[in-house]
Amino acid sequence: MRKIITLTTDFGLQDYYVSAMKGVILHETPNARLVDISHEIPSQDIMAGSWVLKNSAMLFPPGTVHLVVVDPGVGTSRKPLALKIGDQFFVGPDNGIFSLLTEERDFKAVELTNPSYWRTDRSNTFHGRDVFAPAAAHLCNGTELSQMGDPVEDLQTYHWAVPIADTDGIEGWVIHIDKFGNLITNISQSLIEDVIGSDDLKIYVGNTILDTIENMFAAVPEGEPVAYIGSSGMLEVAINQGNAAKMLSVQKGAQISLVLQRGD
Amino acid sequence: MRKIITLTTDFGLQDYYVSAMKGVILHETPNARLVDISHEIPSQDIMAGSWVLKNSAMLFPPGTVHLVVVDPGVGTSRKPLALKIGDQFFVGPDNGIFSLLTEERDFKAVELTNPSYWRTDRSNTFHGRDVFAPAAAHLCNGTELSQMGDPVEDLQTYHWAVPIADTDGIEGWVIHIDKFGNLITNISQSLIEDVIGSDDLKIYVGNTILDTIENMFAAVPEGEPVAYIGSSGMLEVAINQGNAAKMLSVQKGAQISLVLQRGD
Amino acid sequence: MRKIITLTTDFGLQDYYVSAMKGVILHETPNARLVDISHEIPSQDIMAGSWVLKNSAMLFPPGTVHLVVVDPGVGTSRKPLALKIGDQFFVGPDNGIFSLLTEERDFKAVELTNPSYWRTDRSNTFHGRDVFAPAAAHLCNGTELSQMGDPVEDLQTYHWAVPIADTDGIEGWVIHIDKFGNLITNISQSLIEDVIGSDDLKIYVGNTILDTIENMFAAVPEGEPVAYIGSSGMLEVAINQGNAAKMLSVQKGAQISLVLQRGD
Repeated sequence: MRKIITLTTDFGLQDYYVSAMKGVILHETPNARLVDISHEIPSQDIMAGSWVLKNSAMLFPPGTVHLVVVDPGVGTSRKPLALKIGDQFFVGPDNGIFSLLTEERDFKAVELTNPSYWRTDRSNTFHGRDVFAPAAAHLCNGTELSQMGDPVEDLQTYHWAVPIADTDGIEGWVIHIDKFGNLITNISQSLIEDVIGSDDLKIYVGNTILDTIENMFAAVPEGEPVAYIGSSGMLEVAINQGNAAKMLSVQKGAQISLVLQRGD
Repeated sequence: MRKIITLTTDFGLQDYYVSAMKGVILHETPNARLVDISHEIPSQDIMAGSWVLKNSAMLFPPGTVHLVVVDPGVGTSRKPLALKIGDQFFVGPDNGIFSLLTEERDFKAVELTNPSYWRTDRSNTFHGRDVFAPAAAHLCNGTELSQMGDPVEDLQTYHWAVPIADTDGIEGWVIHIDKFGNLITNISQSLIEDVIGSDDLKIYVGNTILDTIENMFAAVPEGEPVAYIGSSGMLEVAINQGNAAKMLSVQKGAQISLVLQRGD
Repeated sequence: MRKIITLTTDFGLQDYYVSAMKGVILHETPNARLVDISHEIPSQDIMAGSWVLKNSAMLFPPGTVHLVVVDPGVGTSRKPLALKIGDQFFVGPDNGIFSLLTEERDFKAVELTNPSYWRTDRSNTFHGRDVFAPAAAHLCNGTELSQMGDPVEDLQTYHWAVPIADTDGIEGWVIHIDKFGNLITNISQSLIEDVIGSDDLKIYVGNTILDTIENMFAAVPEGEPVAYIGSSGMLEVAINQGNAAKMLSVQKGAQISLVLQRGD
């Protein structure tokens, strides 16, 4: 049985946008259990939204419906979608925000073309309330994707920077800075195992140089920088009990280089 | 059956204020389903709180109980209220925060004078926990308004600025700036239809002049200003994928003028 | 029956950390009802987290499970705990965050040593997702503390500053500044009753001097400072409808002195 609906938006909580969606959902399906994932996605930041989804959506129980509204293109021709990815459902705009989930899994997608599943008055500026929230509620009630619209084969993709690996090492980028100031990179544990293995390396990031990858950030004294594989499976750089972004002067998008150190 | 309780406060989430209310509610009625509307109403900003309620509360299913605590007058003689507005219930202070809902609908209100429905120890500074949360729980359990206190006929009203319309056009004000920096005005679509109709107009707001009302903000190129009817039915001004408040140097309370352009 | 799980963290909501925990919990126990207490505890601030818990956790219904992750020592030898305190359950790190609750109540605690109740892949950096969230879900499902690990007798304590009382009065400290800028001190109502009674006093805090303790902050005109017993039972100093921390130039940790004024 479907009954959990999660919400992920860039709406913040000072406006009526999130609560209007919650009202619409509960009006349609009063037994739905709403779970806030985040309303603090930076405005119109598809990359940040997909990062949150990639690392949490598939942990929910089968049949969960994920309502995702980070929608800078609302009112344009971008398609409103409903998707089944793995054993979970998703509703949101076709702007690449689902890329990181669909590229690794089987999925079906439809464009929400059937107006029976919209609110009667559909605005041009708030599809979250008028298209996506009703769709999430109907999915939760058991409506099939195929009733809600026409199949879509090719989804928009979001192009993430891919790390560059060669015989000298790996060059990657900081793709996210978390609330603690930890730097999350696009360099995965498996890429490091392939390219670096157990060889010596130096890691260049911001204004520091590190020469080992530790098991945890608590491996170094308080206030010291440390590289480790984070809970997402990616290389991260932190300051133990400090803020790495501030102390190392690093912003999202900054380069990080892992350089192999070969003996002569 | 009543079972959903929403929460709208200016408490933020760094303190124990919201969680104390949630604890009190669930202790009294463990099956209540709590839905956060917003705890990010600016401190003591009745206007912002009523704007959020106006645009979302009535969307919830019949019988929903809305707990509203934006209460600068706690401890004074301002009345603690329970209300039925339309098919929904509300609990909160009599300070005008319900004006926008009651002025358009039938309602009943009582002052929460019956101490059987308070917490045993009522503080003078936290009626959210000691008066309003228990009242919301009791309403959710099916208690009648009439059991909880004495009828109140005249509620405090909050005086919103009303736009001025004459043969030259409409003068209004920015009543809310949302998380994206969009400017929401007190000029409704219907007022524009009455006064401007299909005539030419110029819109003066902040440091810009616009000459049309579009269907959506995506009607203009990225980075350009645009006027349109927003999802609340009011005239809004935005920058497509930008922040209008910052780029047009506009703050809440700023004037916006719609001036009719008549051919000679 | 246990079914409510609250969440208290310093994770913020811009990352996947809270939603990953919610996904893990609901995957294990889909009928759990999740209640957010706060995700805005300042990073690694055990004092702030325990203040929120002290003032709200015990208000929840018996059998509530409180998941608490403010965990600067993750990955070190600090113990992961499950506790029963009074009639409620708690899960979180042994770093003193439960001190204010356990020092006043009977409790049992176990270290979460039984890996059957962890996620299969336990990271070194995110025990919230891999150890604590599964433990909360299992407690909610009725698992006994004794199944989850070995008893712990001595918990870490967090040393709060204790006010100093003598024949001249009381010297205390600001232990929390709330969202409104109100100053909450570590001087309790009962200590004031013991030491000051009904004698005259002067209160020195920041750049102001007060000479009475009022019943409520609304006892003084708008914009004026006022001392009163707050909803936590502690002495507080506020500006009526203003921000005391800003206007009195006071930060967390500042001293506050209550000096007895004896007639000659």
